[in-house]
Amino acid sequence: MATTHFADRLADAVERKRSQLVVGLDPLPDHLPVELRGEVHTGREEAAAACERFCRGLVDAVAPYVVAVKPQVAFFEALGADGIRALEDVCAYSRAAGLQVIADGKRGDIGSTARAYATAFLEGDPPLADALTVNPYLGRDSIEPFLAACRRHGAGIFCVVKTSNAGGAEIQDLALTDGKTVWQHVARLVQEWGEDLLGEHGLSAVGAVIGATHPRAVGEARRLLPRSILLLPGVGAQGATPADVARAFTSGPASALVNVSRDVIYAFRVSGMEWRSAAAAEASRYAREVWSVSGW
Amino acid sequence: MATTHFADRLADAVERKRSQLVVGLDPLPDHLPVELRGEVHTGREEAAAACERFCRGLVDAVAPYVVAVKPQVAFFEALGADGIRALEDVCAYSRAAGLQVIADGKRGDIGSTARAYATAFLEGDPPLADALTVNPYLGRDSIEPFLAACRRHGAGIFCVVKTSNAGGAEIQDLALTDGKTVWQHVARLVQEWGEDLLGEHGLSAVGAVIGATHPRAVGEARRLLPRSILLLPGVGAQGATPADVARAFTSGPASALVNVSRDVIYAFRVSGMEWRSAAAAEASRYAREVWSVSGW
Repeated sequence: MATTHFADRLADAVERKRSQLVVGLDPLPDHLPVELRGEVHTGREEAAAACERFCRGLVDAVAPYVVAVKPQVAFFEALGADGIRALEDVCAYSRAAGLQVIADGKRGDIGSTARAYATAFLEGDPPLADALTVNPYLGRDSIEPFLAACRRHGAGIFCVVKTSNAGGAEIQDLALTDGKTVWQHVARLVQEWGEDLLGEHGLSAVGAVIGATHPRAVGEARRLLPRSILLLPGVGAQGATPADVARAFTSGPASALVNVSRDVIYAFRVSGMEWRSAAAAEASRYAREVWSVSGW
Repeated sequence: MATTHFADRLADAVERKRSQLVVGLDPLPDHLPVELRGEVHTGREEAAAACERFCRGLVDAVAPYVVAVKPQVAFFEALGADGIRALEDVCAYSRAAGLQVIADGKRGDIGSTARAYATAFLEGDPPLADALTVNPYLGRDSIEPFLAACRRHGAGIFCVVKTSNAGGAEIQDLALTDGKTVWQHVARLVQEWGEDLLGEHGLSAVGAVIGATHPRAVGEARRLLPRSILLLPGVGAQGATPADVARAFTSGPASALVNVSRDVIYAFRVSGMEWRSAAAAEASRYAREVWSVSGW
């Protein structure tokens, strides 16, 4: 399974489930449902166990409606080694549930260090995750070990290109002498890095993170990266709507993924419903909405 | 201790030890001394234990000659939760030996995620590390939680500005319409982020990573960042020499740190000496050379 092409595994799931939804797993101990939170204040080990149960429950709840989960590595790291143990469990549990796992780590370093990150996330037996988010600031040689993991292990990466936050503009929107912005230049690099890594559906193993909060950038990224899967965060709590990302899907039903985190996993805090039922209801609703605007 | 200013703790150590050397802890299971490597192939737990013993031995060996160690998080992450447990041990052991700990993680993300990274590395009781390397691509709001950790917990950060690898130029050296390069622009941002975080020695808690492999950039970074501690990797295995970084020290004896990793920790593989003695000898030699070129 893991040696098939990442984009093909994903595209198969998208067509089977009629969904391009990814749910972000961002477990914050203080935000967990009361029945899980009971043990949180007794220490990191208990907090990690509570987060693990929360994520497992979410995976059960949303699996029918999503093609992937995106565990945010930081929230697990904040609980130390116990948190990483929980991350390992949650990733394995998600894969057993038939979901792709996109580890959101935004890693980026050089030489043997980049190689170690590729090993950590994409090359175990089984690997921790199917795909990893990466940071482009250190250039091609910092990405090469991840490209090797894509070639050899059927992994995928999503390179951060244009982020959903306001501050990202301070660097990403700088104007270059050739008339492009920094993020547009990075998009061209991502296109080059991924052009020989196409799967049978015509999509590359090298995708891009584009904030859904910038609808115009989403369309521009689509043109610059015709073969890349666009991972679109920012829908829901950050203010973007499914309609804002409609134009991301013109390269095929699996050519973009919409990530929703808080609006799904903490839906119970707003609705008062049982937490798993609340997550399932929101995931189902978002999946239908996104599928509808995608035009497939 | 941890609520004093990071740059002051560091400057005191520099003056006391007459050293601006940092040793990078990059444990690769396959590269360990034979007597530690014995158990490596029996699993991650044993590999992590071997890496932990290696790093503890290195800390003992180099402590008289260095002011800080820089554990490279990727090498620990590659061993999963067991590796993170080893990282936690090595960081605590280093602090007990009187060394500052600079976690080399190059983290960077937004909002609550950046906050979780700050918690993971800089805000425990005691914190895992004294300082963390961070990536600037996501802009000021991705850095803000780390600045808060500097203000509240006496932590430090080193922002990646101009890296030692060749590929870094693909983005960092792009020319902006205002005549600056991307990395020069980032340097200005780093200067702004750190300007209200000065310690008693006049140095900011917000430092910058500048590759020693670009001597001209080192001098330029010094001018753009008069109050920042420059963390200079690339000396040794990557080809730069202490003489290449002499101009980094014009803002004070502690205004720059030279990091050497492989040339110190794997010195035994070249010299055939006992591994701890080999590391101590190389650390001592580099510390003297750097102190000498620093002009203090």
